[in-house]
Amino acid sequence: MFKAKIYVNYKPSVLDPKAQVIQNTLRRLGDDNVQDVLVGKYFELTLAAADQAAAEAQVARICDEMLANVNTETFRYTVEELAVAQ
Amino acid sequence: MFKAKIYVNYKPSVLDPKAQVIQNTLRRLGDDNVQDVLVGKYFELTLAAADQAAAEAQVARICDEMLANVNTETFRYTVEELAVAQ
Repeated sequence: MFKAKIYVNYKPSVLDPKAQVIQNTLRRLGDDNVQDVLVGKYFELTLAAADQAAAEAQVARICDEMLANVNTETFRYTVEELAVAQ
Repeated sequence: MFKAKIYVNYKPSVLDPKAQVIQNTLRRLGDDNVQDVLVGKYFELTLAAADQAAAEAQVARICDEMLANVNTETFRYTVEELAVAQ
């Protein structure tokens, strides 16, 4: 069993309105020492797979085909094998 | 300068419709070996602060007051001091 941790963010070239809203709100609340805000999506998938390579290949495909809009977003992920419960 | 990495997820007791939709879609696409899906929000804040404790206290407050709906969501975060550019 494997656990994938997936991060999906806007590409740096894409203006992120949510991040802008958060930063402006923080300024209004007096948190103007917050100099940069990044907003993204985070996914965890638990999947059975033959081995690490198979799990990673499947996660990459799922990110590419479903979890990220590859026109405006980038994704990165880690895949760890879960210890089998004794 | 400090960087906070913040994860906001639904509480386990709260049904997450997005996760359900993703899992059902994965099944239809043949990825039925994906046994669990967790969907969350991910934030990175870059902030100037007097010290680690001050940065952590501020991040906790920002999560509590703004980034998470504490009725339905939980949050966790890490705060690292950034190396000063030489």
